[in-house]
Amino acid sequence: MALGEFSLIERYFLRPAPGNTLGVGDDAARVELPAATALVICKDLLIEGRHFFSDVAPQTLGHKALAVNLSDLAAMGAEPLGCLLGLGLPEPEERWLESFAQGFHALCDETQCPLLGGDTVRHEQGVLISVTAFGTLPLGHPGLRRSAARAGDDLWVSGWLGAADTALGLLRGELPADDALLAQVRGALERPTPRLSLGRALLDLAHAAIDISDGLAQDLGHVLKASDCGAVIDLASLPAHPALSKLPAARVLRAMLNGGDVYELCFTADPSKRLAIAALAGQLMVPLTRIGQIKSDPGLFARQDNGQQIPLAAQGFDHFAG
Amino acid sequence: MALGEFSLIERYFLRPAPGNTLGVGDDAARVELPAATALVICKDLLIEGRHFFSDVAPQTLGHKALAVNLSDLAAMGAEPLGCLLGLGLPEPEERWLESFAQGFHALCDETQCPLLGGDTVRHEQGVLISVTAFGTLPLGHPGLRRSAARAGDDLWVSGWLGAADTALGLLRGELPADDALLAQVRGALERPTPRLSLGRALLDLAHAAIDISDGLAQDLGHVLKASDCGAVIDLASLPAHPALSKLPAARVLRAMLNGGDVYELCFTADPSKRLAIAALAGQLMVPLTRIGQIKSDPGLFARQDNGQQIPLAAQGFDHFAG
Repeated sequence: MALGEFSLIERYFLRPAPGNTLGVGDDAARVELPAATALVICKDLLIEGRHFFSDVAPQTLGHKALAVNLSDLAAMGAEPLGCLLGLGLPEPEERWLESFAQGFHALCDETQCPLLGGDTVRHEQGVLISVTAFGTLPLGHPGLRRSAARAGDDLWVSGWLGAADTALGLLRGELPADDALLAQVRGALERPTPRLSLGRALLDLAHAAIDISDGLAQDLGHVLKASDCGAVIDLASLPAHPALSKLPAARVLRAMLNGGDVYELCFTADPSKRLAIAALAGQLMVPLTRIGQIKSDPGLFARQDNGQQIPLAAQGFDHFAG
Repeated sequence: MALGEFSLIERYFLRPAPGNTLGVGDDAARVELPAATALVICKDLLIEGRHFFSDVAPQTLGHKALAVNLSDLAAMGAEPLGCLLGLGLPEPEERWLESFAQGFHALCDETQCPLLGGDTVRHEQGVLISVTAFGTLPLGHPGLRRSAARAGDDLWVSGWLGAADTALGLLRGELPADDALLAQVRGALERPTPRLSLGRALLDLAHAAIDISDGLAQDLGHVLKASDCGAVIDLASLPAHPALSKLPAARVLRAMLNGGDVYELCFTADPSKRLAIAALAGQLMVPLTRIGQIKSDPGLFARQDNGQQIPLAAQGFDHFAG
């Protein structure tokens, strides 16, 4: 039985909208912002074969499609308000859709970010996902902008690094098969946790923030460029995911510096905030690691064990790189 | 020379954001809503080969990608505030991008709807466009919802009907080649005008509204279902585009009732508003035609010249119809 566009939307994506909100099912959604807040909004496109493997579990994909957008809200310090889903699909399969919607809605519920609208279209060549997430910032706060880093700031990163890139290497066969390792790192790639509580708490503590979805070096490069400053990363301080201890050190270092698909926050803060940030790590149960410093001179450098500084190329992920 | 993702964004899509707004170039955009307004938001996916021909002029495509979203805001009665653009591209060509951006930004400027963010990704199989448009409604107004039609309301439509479907028929070779006719109807398909001023003015005059992008019969069907009522359309009153006079009457009727890609508004209003709506048509220089009535009994019917009523199937466009 062919599943029509409208019954598809009704069956899998129509949910009662909260309170005064007009959600799925009209020309557009209507949402009232809480008093004294500004709107924060972002969107991402995810394409089968490019951003996710064709055989990824649909529930996992539903989670990730929303998570990567919530991560952008987190990097601004914003609180989610709702989201829209654009879905391009080959012949729709009910089991796939049900599972995808489950993963998507579960994260909606967890983050209080209801699905309020979107669009579904036919796309024979594979699954396309475009999520728009929006939320709020206190009206007086400009958000954790990329341009707000200051010379002398500490450089911090949340969570562990290197896991998503290692999972990708294993799944692509670039690393020797290791099911035990894959089991430990796969979650970082497929079910990332958007750092929403962290982002909101950082509004009072941090200057600049960015999520490092294109890799630490590249995304930090955006902050440095926007803030017109430089940085030094202490290589020894980078928080490698514990499961990576058996991999060659150079490979782990590359995964931590250049591996993409990481939904952790890199942020800068005045050194006077160190204690408060350490306390926050305990409170949120998220590792927060000081990995370097912002400098007034431009350029991104790595400080090695021997104290020597080497320039770091910003080799992260660029969708159109040759 | 390969054009990187970031230089592509900088060159074609980065523009100074107005006032307090944080636009393209951070993790998310930050926008302050005008006082006493609610957010209205929508999104669409457009896919090469499905929603537009591969050889469409990129400037035209840039216009249309935004226009179809603004049309959804118009159908709510909302005032645009900004938009986001997700773009999937094969190898990016500078001339194509420049022209696309020109068409997009021109409509941004015309409608005061600045581009504030988005995403660009590689997509070998063709161009993908996902636009999110957002705007505002007065806080006390729920918007022109689909569920607000009332029995006894007049049924209205803006503009002329049948042109986009005729252009599609000519371009697909389903109608005999006729360059003069194509020149007259092509604009309706490729450069639709979102009825923003009309939508806003209707906040005080209309009950329900919808844009008829999936065809009059189908989209009106959504209004009837949501409002739990029926309607009769007077076939003789339908405003056929003047250029269609030489086509067979049955073909024109089908184009008007079922042809998609129409960015006119169909709306319902109390009969006491007829004079005000006629005055509005003159003021906005947009034809507004009374085409029927909302009934308490369910079903969509067409009244023929002889007074006979026949049931109308809601055969518009469904992306997943078999």
